[in-house]
Parts: sequence; C-alpha cells; structure tokens
Amino acid sequence: MIIVLRPKTREEDKNRIIDKIHSLGLKTMISQGVERTIIGVIGEEDIMRVQPMEAFPGVEKVIPVLAPYKLVSREFKPEDSVIKVKGVDIGAKRVVVMAGPCAIENLETLRDIATAVRKSGALILRGGAFKPRTSPYSFQGLGLEGLKIMKEVADELGLLSVTEVIDPRDVELVVKYADIMQIGARNMQNFNLLKEAGKSKKPVLLKRGMMSTIKEFLMSAEYILSEGNFNVILCERGIRTFETYTRNTLDINAVPAIKMLSHLPIIVDPSHATGKWGLVCAVSRAAIAAGADGLIVEVHTHPEQAASDGEQSLNAENFDKMVKELTAIARAVGREI
Amino acid sequence: MIIVLRPKTREEDKNRIIDKIHSLGLKTMISQGVERTIIGVIGEEDIMRVQPMEAFPGVEKVIPVLAPYKLVSREFKPEDSVIKVKGVDIGAKRVVVMAGPCAIENLETLRDIATAVRKSGALILRGGAFKPRTSPYSFQGLGLEGLKIMKEVADELGLLSVTEVIDPRDVELVVKYADIMQIGARNMQNFNLLKEAGKSKKPVLLKRGMMSTIKEFLMSAEYILSEGNFNVILCERGIRTFETYTRNTLDINAVPAIKMLSHLPIIVDPSHATGKWGLVCAVSRAAIAAGADGLIVEVHTHPEQAASDGEQSLNAENFDKMVKELTAIARAVGREI
Amino acid sequence: MIIVLRPKTREEDKNRIIDKIHSLGLKTMISQGVERTIIGVIGEEDIMRVQPMEAFPGVEKVIPVLAPYKLVSREFKPEDSVIKVKGVDIGAKRVVVMAGPCAIENLETLRDIATAVRKSGALILRGGAFKPRTSPYSFQGLGLEGLKIMKEVADELGLLSVTEVIDPRDVELVVKYADIMQIGARNMQNFNLLKEAGKSKKPVLLKRGMMSTIKEFLMSAEYILSEGNFNVILCERGIRTFETYTRNTLDINAVPAIKMLSHLPIIVDPSHATGKWGLVCAVSRAAIAAGADGLIVEVHTHPEQAASDGEQSLNAENFDKMVKELTAIARAVGREI
Amino acid sequence: MIIVLRPKTREEDKNRIIDKIHSLGLKTMISQGVERTIIGVIGEEDIMRVQPMEAFPGVEKVIPVLAPYKLVSREFKPEDSVIKVKGVDIGAKRVVVMAGPCAIENLETLRDIATAVRKSGALILRGGAFKPRTSPYSFQGLGLEGLKIMKEVADELGLLSVTEVIDPRDVELVVKYADIMQIGARNMQNFNLLKEAGKSKKPVLLKRGMMSTIKEFLMSAEYILSEGNFNVILCERGIRTFETYTRNTLDINAVPAIKMLSHLPIIVDPSHATGKWGLVCAVSRAAIAAGADGLIVEVHTHPEQAASDGEQSLNAENFDKMVKELTAIARAVGREI
Repeated sequence: MIIVLRPKTREEDKNRIIDKIHSLGLKTMISQGVERTIIGVIGEEDIMRVQPMEAFPGVEKVIPVLAPYKLVSREFKPEDSVIKVKGVDIGAKRVVVMAGPCAIENLETLRDIATAVRKSGALILRGGAFKPRTSPYSFQGLGLEGLKIMKEVADELGLLSVTEVIDPRDVELVVKYADIMQIGARNMQNFNLLKEAGKSKKPVLLKRGMMSTIKEFLMSAEYILSEGNFNVILCERGIRTFETYTRNTLDINAVPAIKMLSHLPIIVDPSHATGKWGLVCAVSRAAIAAGADGLIVEVHTHPEQAASDGEQSLNAENFDKMVKELTAIARAVGREI
Repeated sequence: MIIVLRPKTREEDKNRIIDKIHSLGLKTMISQGVERTIIGVIGEEDIMRVQPMEAFPGVEKVIPVLAPYKLVSREFKPEDSVIKVKGVDIGAKRVVVMAGPCAIENLETLRDIATAVRKSGALILRGGAFKPRTSPYSFQGLGLEGLKIMKEVADELGLLSVTEVIDPRDVELVVKYADIMQIGARNMQNFNLLKEAGKSKKPVLLKRGMMSTIKEFLMSAEYILSEGNFNVILCERGIRTFETYTRNTLDINAVPAIKMLSHLPIIVDPSHATGKWGLVCAVSRAAIAAGADGLIVEVHTHPEQAASDGEQSLNAENFDKMVKELTAIARAVGREI
Repeated sequence: MIIVLRPKTREEDKNRIIDKIHSLGLKTMISQGVERTIIGVIGEEDIMRVQPMEAFPGVEKVIPVLAPYKLVSREFKPEDSVIKVKGVDIGAKRVVVMAGPCAIENLETLRDIATAVRKSGALILRGGAFKPRTSPYSFQGLGLEGLKIMKEVADELGLLSVTEVIDPRDVELVVKYADIMQIGARNMQNFNLLKEAGKSKKPVLLKRGMMSTIKEFLMSAEYILSEGNFNVILCERGIRTFETYTRNTLDINAVPAIKMLSHLPIIVDPSHATGKWGLVCAVSRAAIAAGADGLIVEVHTHPEQAASDGEQSLNAENFDKMVKELTAIARAVGREI
Repeated sequence: MIIVLRPKTREEDKNRIIDKIHSLGLKTMISQGVERTIIGVIGEEDIMRVQPMEAFPGVEKVIPVLAPYKLVSREFKPEDSVIKVKGVDIGAKRVVVMAGPCAIENLETLRDIATAVRKSGALILRGGAFKPRTSPYSFQGLGLEGLKIMKEVADELGLLSVTEVIDPRDVELVVKYADIMQIGARNMQNFNLLKEAGKSKKPVLLKRGMMSTIKEFLMSAEYILSEGNFNVILCERGIRTFETYTRNTLDINAVPAIKMLSHLPIIVDPSHATGKWGLVCAVSRAAIAAGADGLIVEVHTHPEQAASDGEQSLNAENFDKMVKELTAIARAVGREI
C-alpha cells in the first residue's frame, strides 16, 4: 500500500501515520520527493486495507497495490480449475452449453424445450423457479413446483440442471432439486446468500452484477470459496452502461481478463448481455472465440408465448443453427462442443 | 404501449400481433405511416407489460408509455407522505438529520459519537450492526451485540435509531431493536428482503442501488408498499459512473425528480455519495437546497480509528459546523432543522 | 412520434398541441386512455424532431419512433457496402488487418514495424502523425514530417496507410499523404471536421466516441454521407464504463447491432478497447467471430520504447501469432484474412 | 510513480526496468515484499508519464501518484482566480448568472429574452450562433448573422455575452463579437480548438465533456493556460450515466472537488445537466449551495417555439422566480447575486 501525503504536511502528522503503521507490525519506506512525501507500506497489505488511512490529517490518497482476493486468484492456484458436475466437466476442453427458458412455466413446455436443446447439443438445462423481478406485479416463478418440474424433465432426458436461488433460506431446497445453483446478477453482493452457497459445497454458477467490477466479481466468488466451496463457475452476463440499444453491454474483455486473474472457469450469458435474440448468435461466437468455457442461453420453443424474457430467447431452430456455428468456432480455438 | 413494426412486415404477422392484443381484452389503434406501421395499444398497460411482444415476427420495438409503479406515484397520492417515527416526522417541514458511525464498534465509542451528534442537532442515530462488505475478510459488524449497543445508547440519549438489515431472516430481530430498518444499496433488488420489510409494517429507509435507475428505485419501493407498508423513506446515496475521483456520483437531479414522481420523502447520504469527508459538507448543503427531506451522515469522533469508512466520516467538530451551515440553507428554502 | 400527456391536462392545452402538429402539415391520432391521453403523430417524423414539444404545457413525454439516420441505414441500402481503397476491399469477404504504431516516431522504426506487420499479413499501415493527447505536455506527434515518413514507408512496402486527422484545416493535407483518414473517438462529434471529411470524398475511418451511443455514432457517419462521401468505415474501439481494470470496454454487441442497422463496414480496435496487450489477441478473435470486417491493431517492434501507448501494443512476434489464430476464426465464419 | 512487478519476475527483467528509470535521471526505491516487488520512482513524475512502462516484461501495474496538471492546480496558485470581464468579476463574492436561449433565432426574439433575463438579474447573455448538433439535418445556428444579432442586443441592453465556438478557424471571429467564448462539452478534447482559445487570451468558458473525468477536464483547461491564457471559467454541465430519466446527471460532487483541486472559478449549467425545465430550479439552488460561482441557464420567452432545446428552457416567469430563490441560497452561503 502506498500513502501519498499532501504538500506541506506537518512533521507531526507524518509521524502519526508512520507510528500507526508500525503499531500494526508493518514496515515503512519513506520517499521524500520534491512535491510530495510518499510512504510505502511493507508487509501484509490486508492488515492495512481495513484501516481508514485517508482519515488521518495530511493524507491525500491511499493506493492499494495488491488485489484483495486470494483463493480465487491464479497465484493461489496456477492451473485451471475444472468443476465436475455428475460427469460433465466445466472448464475443460469441451465448451459446455446450458440452455432453456427464462422461467419454468409448466411440465409440457419445459419438456418440449429441453428435448429441443438436448438434441442440438446442450448438456445442462436452465430454467427459473424463483424469479427476481423488478416489479412486484410480474410473474415471480413457480417456486417449489418449478423445481420439481425441472428435476422431472432433467432426469427424464438425462440432462443436468441449473436454476437460480434468491434467498438464503432456499439454498437447501434448490440443491435438492438442481445440480447447479445459480446466484444471479442482482444477488452478486447478497453476502449471506453467498455464504450459504459456500457452506452447501454444491456447484455454484455466480453471475456478475450488472454494475460490478471484475474485482468485486472475484471478491464475491471469494466469499463462496472462503466457506470451503471451490465449485464455482463464473458467468459474465453484460454490464450496465450508457448504451440503451442493447439491454446490457457484454464485457467481452472480462473473459480473457478473468482467465488471467483467476483459475475458475468462466461462461457467458449472451441472452441477458444483449437482450435481443437477433444478436445472441454473434456474441456467442465471440464469447467462445475469446476463450469462454461455456454459454448459458435462453431458448424457448415459442418465444412469443414465454412468461418472461421472450424477446431475448432463441427459438429451437435458431438455437440449433447457433450450436453448429459455435462448433466451428470451438474447433478454431482448439476446443470442442 | 406502442408497438413499432419493421418495414415490409407481412400482413399475416401484423394480424397475429393484433389478434394477440385483442385476445388480452385490449384495443388497438393502427397508424399506417409511410415508413412504418405503428400499433397503439389501448387499455391497461400492465397486461401488455408481461407479454414478450418483441418476440413476435415483424416487431421492431416495443415502447411502454406509462410508469410501471402505482402505489409510490404522485398520481396515486398527490400530497407528500410524512413518515411518523415516534414523534419525529420525516417528510415534513423539518429537515431530519441522521448521523453516526458506519459500523457500531463498542458501547463507549457509540455513546461518544451519539452524544456529539445529538448535541449538534441530529435526531436519529445511525450505525451498522450487520455490514455488507465486499471482502469476506473485512469486519462484518457486531450483529446482535451491535443492535443491543445501539438500542442502549439511543434510549439513554433519547435518540431514534436506524440500522441496516441484510437478510430476510433478520427483519424481525432488527425491528425489535431499531426504529427504522435500512435496506442498503446492494440489497435494493433483494426482493425477498423487500417483501419481508413490507410485511413488518415498520419504517423502512430504502437506499437506491448504485446501479439502479430512478424507475427501478421506485419499483423496489413499490415492493414494500404492495405488501401494505407505506412507511418508506427513500435515500439517494450516489450512483456508479465512470468518474473515479469520488467514490460515487451523487445524483442530485434525482431529488427533485423523485419529488415529482412520488409522494414518499427522500433523504440524501452525502458520505457514500462522495466517499471523501472533505466534500460531505458542500453536497449536504446542495441536497437540502434541492429539496431533500433529510440527510444520513457518517460521523465518528475518531475517524482515523473507525472500523470502516473512516475516510468518508466527519469528525464531531466538522459535523457541528455543517449542521450550522445547513440550518441557513434550510431557512433559505422555507424549512428548518 | 408519440406524445404522452400528463393526467388531467386541460382541453385547451391538448388542443394547442394538436393545432401545432397540424400546422406543420402532419396528422394526429388521439388515444384517450383511462389514465393518459396519447397523441400519435403521422407523417415525416423529422419535421417533429426539431420541435420542442416537451415545452408545451401538459406534455409529459415525447417518444420518437424512428431512427434519425437515413443514408447510413440498411433501409436506405439493404446490401453491404464495400469500401474500395486502391485494390483493397473493406467490407467484403476478406477480413482486413490494419496495424502499426500508435505514433510515428521516425523512419527507421516505422519501416521496421511496417515490414513486420506486412510479413504477418497486414494490408494497411496505421500510425499517428497528429496525436490528440489528454495532456498538453505529452508528445503531440510529428505532424507533416510524420505524414511524409508514413507515405515513404507505405509506398516502399506496397502497403496502404491510415492516419488520424484532428483539425478541419488539415483534411486536405492528410488525404494527400494517406489513403484513409481516421477521425478519432474524441472527434466523433467534431461536426465541422466530419463535414470537411465528407467534402473530401476520400475514405474515412470513423471511430466511435468513448461515450457515444450506437445511434450517435451512426448520426456522425450520416454527417459524412450527407456531404456526398459514402466511403465510410466504422470502427468500434471500446466505450467508457465504470470498469477500470481495462482502459475501455469493447462493446462487442455493437458489431452485430451495427451490421443490422447499417450497410457500412465495421472494424474493431482491440488495442484501445482493452488498453492491455495481453488481452488484444483474445478480443480480436472475438471481433472476427462476431462479424467484424477488419481490425486496427497497435503493433510496435519495441513496445517498451514506444512514444505512446506501448502498454497496449503487441510486439511483432505476438502480432504474427495473433494473425494465425485469426485466420482460423475467419475460416470458421466463412471468411479469410 | 509506483511500478508493481508480477510475482516471480526474473532478476534481469527487474534490472532492465530499473536501468531504464535511472537512464532518465530518476532514482528508484525498491520494496521487496513477500508477494511482490514494488519500485518507487523518485523525481519528476512527468518524465515517467510518457514512458510505456507497462510494456516492459514483468510489469503488472503502473500507478501514477501525482496529478498531471500544473497551472490549473491549487498548488500552483493557492488563492481563487477571479476572471474579470468588462467589469463583471467571475469567481468573486457575487454569483454570476448567464442566461438566454439555446440558439439565437432572430433579433426580436433575442431582444425579448435578453430584456427579460436582464430584468431578473442576469449579467451575461448566452446564445448559440454555431450549434453542434447530433444530426446533420438539425438547425445548425445562424453563424456570423447570429453573432451580430447577439452583439447588437448585448450592447443595447448593457449585457455581456457568451457564445460557443466549435471550429479553430472561428476563434478570431467569435471573440470579435462576444465577450466570452464557450468551448462546449463535445469539444472539450478538441485540442487544436483549445490551443487557439489559449492563444487568443480572451475569456473562455470551458464545459466539461459528458464523458470526461474531473482530471481530464482540468487537463483540457491546462491546454488553454499553457498557451498563456489564464482567463478560464470551468463549467459542470452533467455527465452521461446509465440513468435515462434525465438527459444527463449533474455531477454536483465536482463543484467542491474542483474548488479543492483548482483555483479556477466553476459554474454550473442546470439546463443540460437535467434536460427538463421542471428540474432546473432545484438543481440551480443545489449548485449555488455547493459553492458554484455562477450559472448558465437556458431561458426562452416562448420555449415551445424555440429552435432547439425548448424542453429544457425556463420561461421568463420561472426564471425570475428562480433568481429570487437563488438570492436566498446565495445569502445563506455568504454570497450575493
């Protein structure tokens, strides 16, 4: 950590800061420049991080030097993590496609969709039973009933399943029915939910918050790992920007950036990242080309009848076409689907 | 709701859309322009809102016309709402100042701070017992112990209290000890927490999410009101933008905008909105001048020893100076402190 | 255009608005809803666009329905435009790679770089002679001297050249020496520069402003086309967001979005879009996979000695490796390099 | 400047970096931590700033420590600058109000507006002759004719005048007719325009770009000062964020922040910062309360007939009401209007 002092800081204020640092068992290195005095702190940066050094008189700026995450970092674990879920490896050579409707509506519709996406090559069925909706008047999902439908369809067709959990009280319930629990963008900093997910030890698909930095995203994953659950799959799903033509802006930079910073697998959600089904195919190709380990895509056999997010859902035909295109891209980067 | 069709949409696609709308019991008005056909939908917009019209072939754009919130709107209740909390009116002529530390650290420190802020004119003591922290390794608050300390100090000094709740399981506990429960920015779309807060009927201080639009903010308040709890105080606390000099960007526009759109009182958190104690006083003056009904300010008698957010906390002396300045501003806009 | 009136708008205010619209030679369609009156305007939307309808008493909101651009739109020209520059087609089957240093430093360095990028497959040499720099104390480019060096090197090696123009007074000069003039992100709304570029009829590479929407980007291109110059190549180069790990956020969504909205070719600048050379290769693959017609990449034989932007420049070896990877991606999407 | 090395950086790479720094005449201070080596650079940071240190193998991050601006900084000039324009002091005790239409339309209309704003207390008449418009098909201003009208009206009524210049070729012309030349948000980084404005020595009103940080804003002012023109008035006019209810987001934090960082006066443009006339009055009060030295406000006697931006223009009556309210706020902060 670097502490920059204001010009003309009084000697006593400077000493007070240095004493504080020493009292924490850390060393200092003072650089007396022409314009500014700069104090370098040597030792565990974490000790300093919780100190409000900017509140000391004379301090102009405090600059942390190291990343605040540990267990999720490449330095902690240099090789890629592969999350194994009942025979499906996420983060390995095969690019994993998860697909299904935004919300689970009923058994027949889910079965139709699941049959279609399985045929095209999806290995994991997605579908929401608990839906976090902006409006209290929107459809909030079927709840437990939805979980049961999902399990029935997944078992029947030999698919794995992923579904969202939005309440710490529901973690146990969700992992009873689904193979992967998803923590959505709006809950990326619902820390008690992260802790419960960490305690459960079951695979977690953690979505990036729509206005969270890469650093905060990794810190939220750190919450889960710090509870002893290393089965975390990251998911970039678009961030909020000033651009309004698309629902969100897919941060494609984040895919290789996170690959460098962390050992965890990262997948992309092209449906929320664009909000327009006509763009899903192109950005999915981009995601695989950039190095993503998988995709989670909204597919509906009748998008115009979907209970939510129909405007960003592919129909079965377009999904099938897309997977064929993705297969070519995967091959071009030395992978397969 | 307005539905814009693509140029050269086929007659059958157009009819399919119109039939869909009619089947929902709504009327249409067709405007056949030179370049585009536009379909106006007449009737309850809410019915349309949950339909994924953009998934219909031929649809270029769907434009909602009305705001999606009801109970929080000025139209529903034209006069200002005044939230009454044990003799303190929020949203009335008096500008209400809430002040205290970011986190409750121990009895002595809180008592010192509370004594200081009370002397300067604060009516409500703030302080966190459950802290949502970006890092799992940061101080997470004293929990129940913190709630007890807060209650003891508040009772002793005749102050009201406000503290954050971050888990739906803790709502009952928090309202047992505090007069106002705060729902923080990171939980603004923690919908189950909103529902529990709604069920409790106790006063809620709802902070705007750092990534949330005014519309989404009001929709989150709507969640609470729709459960029958109209005791909601809104709080603008800065939004995330590209500017990094300050921690957040105080959206001062939001104060008069929300006053126009909603009957609920709105206060401002200048501490999080700036992240720098040196800016707190100036933007607090701005907030009152813009029409805010109150402030929630971080104050610590020894900011440099604070367990969190010391860099944005005022010390007792600066807080006292600030309240004096605010008194003049309040008077200039026909209010008092 | 749709005009939404406030609830309880007076009849006379409503009539005043309608009279205004009729006086412009347009027709109206009135929808008297339960909560709101909505006025649809039928006829040329452009006539309405310049009217400040929101200033009329009673108007709550004005919603434009059509895109404000014409000549750049797919509707105006359904087939892809191919910009032909001395035998190189941009926007055709071949993905075109432009590469070179951020700034032209001297003849030898540029020749070294140009030789390297040509060998790897670049067809067009990039390099700045006039540099728009945030600081007045930074290197501002060699100016005319730089243009001459660029021309000498390009001619010698049989490459085309692209360089930035930042002043309307320099357009004539720049097109004398370079094959394509670039208008940079900071000048995307320097309208007089756009007009001069339009008048020159020479190929223009127009970069998206770092905080410009897709719509504004296309409107800036419209400026050039409306002066009679259809030789415009668009370039997505990253937008400014809250994320600070990368210099900008590549808006990969914009690539297929612009392909849908416009007939103009679009290329990607992965160097500015990431600001980190370690990410350039991955996002370049993504760009081609998403459908980009080319790339403009910063390459330097000695990035650590570059006069500017060395941290985002590839060295010759990495550039060569990248082009090989891109060749595989291009093939996977039915194109070539 | 601080250079953070990657873990396990090779000794030779480290030495290469240190040698480079020493070769520039600077000293280094090495901190060999447990996890990272950190190199502190001692001496003129400007020398380092132009070096692409991140391009050196082994470098993880480069952290500048000092602000890159000099002449505009408080450190360069601790006392407030007062810009004197023909008897009107900007940056002194009196808050200066500039008002007028967005665009100059004709002599009669401008005279009406000028008469009204002068009566209410405005000292400076604003009005655009050269209009930077997003669309090539929008009204682009009257040009020279507009300048002449403005001068005639200002002279007649004893007002000063401010108008925008958008082309470096027009600087001489504009200062011939107007007392203050405005450089608009879209041209904040039109560096050649800044240089021409700097050379002219006439007062410049520099608006913050909608996409520009406070640091970049001050760097653009530095361009003007570095040409020898210290007569610069800064103007915060709202930044672009994800919020779409308002046209921009007024960055009220920037007012006290810039007061701390710079000696230059800063005013606020509430009209562009909100885009809605109904919000202008409230945020203007906020601006003065936060310490702004003045306002530039759009006023039109018939907003609904304005050639541009009518939706954000106050009418004469509301402007008059606003100035009265501002007078009370100014007094509350020890100033006057």
